[in-house]
Amino acid sequence: MHEILTLIEEQSFTKLREVLDEMNPADIAEELAEIDDDKSLVVAFRLLPKEQAAEVFSYLEPHEQQRVVEGISDKELASIVNEMFNDDAVDFMEEMPANIVRRVLCTADAATRKAINQLLKYPESSAGSLMTTELLRFKSEWTVAQAIDHVRKCCMELASITYAFVTDDFRHLTGVVSMKEVLGSEDEELIANIMDDDVIFAYTLDDQADVAERFKKYDVVSMPVVDGESRLVGLITIDDVVDVIEDENTEDIYKMAAMAPIEDSYIETSVFQIARKRVVWLLVLMISATFTGMIITRFENVLAKVAILTSFIPMLMDTSGNSGSQASVSIIRSLVLGEVQFRDIFKVIWKEFRVSILVGTAVAAANYLRILICYWIGIYTVDPGQSIYLIGAVVSLTLVAAIICAKFVGCTLPLLADKCKLDPALMASPMITTIVDAVSLLVYFAIASAMLPGLF
Amino acid sequence: MHEILTLIEEQSFTKLREVLDEMNPADIAEELAEIDDDKSLVVAFRLLPKEQAAEVFSYLEPHEQQRVVEGISDKELASIVNEMFNDDAVDFMEEMPANIVRRVLCTADAATRKAINQLLKYPESSAGSLMTTELLRFKSEWTVAQAIDHVRKCCMELASITYAFVTDDFRHLTGVVSMKEVLGSEDEELIANIMDDDVIFAYTLDDQADVAERFKKYDVVSMPVVDGESRLVGLITIDDVVDVIEDENTEDIYKMAAMAPIEDSYIETSVFQIARKRVVWLLVLMISATFTGMIITRFENVLAKVAILTSFIPMLMDTSGNSGSQASVSIIRSLVLGEVQFRDIFKVIWKEFRVSILVGTAVAAANYLRILICYWIGIYTVDPGQSIYLIGAVVSLTLVAAIICAKFVGCTLPLLADKCKLDPALMASPMITTIVDAVSLLVYFAIASAMLPGLF
Repeated sequence: MHEILTLIEEQSFTKLREVLDEMNPADIAEELAEIDDDKSLVVAFRLLPKEQAAEVFSYLEPHEQQRVVEGISDKELASIVNEMFNDDAVDFMEEMPANIVRRVLCTADAATRKAINQLLKYPESSAGSLMTTELLRFKSEWTVAQAIDHVRKCCMELASITYAFVTDDFRHLTGVVSMKEVLGSEDEELIANIMDDDVIFAYTLDDQADVAERFKKYDVVSMPVVDGESRLVGLITIDDVVDVIEDENTEDIYKMAAMAPIEDSYIETSVFQIARKRVVWLLVLMISATFTGMIITRFENVLAKVAILTSFIPMLMDTSGNSGSQASVSIIRSLVLGEVQFRDIFKVIWKEFRVSILVGTAVAAANYLRILICYWIGIYTVDPGQSIYLIGAVVSLTLVAAIICAKFVGCTLPLLADKCKLDPALMASPMITTIVDAVSLLVYFAIASAMLPGLF
Repeated sequence: MHEILTLIEEQSFTKLREVLDEMNPADIAEELAEIDDDKSLVVAFRLLPKEQAAEVFSYLEPHEQQRVVEGISDKELASIVNEMFNDDAVDFMEEMPANIVRRVLCTADAATRKAINQLLKYPESSAGSLMTTELLRFKSEWTVAQAIDHVRKCCMELASITYAFVTDDFRHLTGVVSMKEVLGSEDEELIANIMDDDVIFAYTLDDQADVAERFKKYDVVSMPVVDGESRLVGLITIDDVVDVIEDENTEDIYKMAAMAPIEDSYIETSVFQIARKRVVWLLVLMISATFTGMIITRFENVLAKVAILTSFIPMLMDTSGNSGSQASVSIIRSLVLGEVQFRDIFKVIWKEFRVSILVGTAVAAANYLRILICYWIGIYTVDPGQSIYLIGAVVSLTLVAAIICAKFVGCTLPLLADKCKLDPALMASPMITTIVDAVSLLVYFAIASAMLPGLF
């Protein structure tokens, strides 16, 4: 696969140019990223045909983009930036140090510079920062023939021509029409007659996660963006939205595992950054585990009298923690996908209650059997006067009760968090585990005190 | 928002028709789903303009689709199915009971029936089951003018015209050309000259998750599908891929929380199904927690001598479990996103080692302070002859060691699983917790025995 590198070392540039010409830009970018030597990287990049260079550049990771930029001339840089779609250029510049940003802005042509400067002003996770300005505009009074003529003249500059957007004289967005509809209509037909005036759009300052939701709900492949005065200013295409969806999922998954999300990839984030994102929740959870410790201290005498009870504590804590996180993660995901809402809370509780009865009974029965088997083969021993059957019953009953409590806590907390406009993902496993640990210990000691003779 | 329902109750059908005409199909589907009465649902559905009916129908959930189908005539059903895109029709039929599938196939026109029958044959999560057959085909010998003429005649039947696919006389896929490129070229230009013969495609039997990966890697909005003999048979559009990406994410998240993924939404899955998907892992993890219990039994005498040591067990287990799951979840997600691979294992271990030193030291220091404060305010008491300073040191040292071990286990297991072609998501929190519990208890007792006087 390292054909490019081999050809550079052999200085077979003609052959290399042919190879590059045949390859897909995404694949070229992947191979270029493997080249460790900056000089060879720039040599290979320079051999790309001019129109392909900008595309390959868009696919490179920020680190490689910087290495390329530092090796090429201002003129080459200008040609790449002018050729790139605005949204890709902005994505690239947001990751670069200030000196490179300045160099890019100085070398780009006036129109590109203006567009990029405009886009750089939007907050990083807003609709404005996702959009490109290179979109297709129609006037409603045009005929289909005029519109097609217009497309044929300007389309090579545009990011997407799947939809055209209709604006009035004040640049207000008034309609949308698909290229399919345009091409399928008669030449004399007016755009006003075939356009749809019910446009799904976003505002520049909308959060990108909400924009992604709207893409999914309406199954659209592009969405126009308007400013505060309803003037059309840009277009978001679905390929950028796919990245947003993956980022949002990563963020949720990190939060569910008690970490603040990192901004770059794991490999590119520094050790110090990763530690910082992880330590906060660990501290919070460690300190709140003080309560669990206090419960154990409070019931020290029970544990001293029936020593074997201590050995079941980890199993009880883990099993109820796992049950709780199963429920919470199911509900968090359903909230994200829009399948459940706060108003379903009683339906959800009733469902989880029935699930926990089924699961609890099965796990408790298996546990009773496991305790007996461990006793028979000599892993567990009990003091004289104590009955393994009774102790097994205490542990198994606790399991059922703890699983019911855990599923209840697990399913209600995310819904309550959502209702209070908090992020439900923060209510996932670690948070639930800490609460459920305390609950299951209390249940354990209550059942043990009630069922085992001479314990209080 | 329940305007539709109100208008049905008032029998204001003319007004209702106007309202429906103004609304977006996705919004109509959402409102129709709120109508509980089957008759009113069918009444509202029948008032939709014919071309909109099929689109609204595609947006409905399977449960509502079935209710509509059961209330309308064969003729109405036929017109919907013929109007729907093939991939949407197949998605719908895969969810319906056999009698409805038969009815649909009997009423659809011959061409639609043939296409649907063909598509229904592909395995449920294959590229074949995602694709539609309504795609745009060109011949390489056509001129741009001929191609545009062709598009203008047939485009209204097609799912997408953003790209056209070029085939030879044997229907082999030989190239792709974007409509932008076509419209931007001169009338006399040959398609052969502007098409790209390096096509990114999928095979009918490719797994849909792999297809989604390819969409993301190459940033494409549609992908042609070929059969075993390289003949073009269909087209996958990105809106269906977005659904696949969300499904794959849901599956990963479920596995990470020790559940087998459910197929339908949480609300639509039965209690028994949910219980079945959750109980297996709970049983496995409960039984493997036997080892943790055995470790405690083995060191019963240590706990009996210094009773306060028991109260730190939950905190030690939770904190090391959380640290381990932070590492494992980070790595699992990076594997899914293609950011790390097995060959990075030493880089990852070294990174996690440094992270765990930073995090471990911070958490241990906070914990030492916490223990002292709890002692000073009287929450913890120690027996005469024991030192809280020494006990605090034992617990804090254990924390550092346990966090280092947990992060090591947490980062290596997913990478090893991936290398062994197992799903790394199965190595998430619950699995790691169980292993890490045992490790941290062993470390705890080892450190306690070494540091506290008179313990062995």
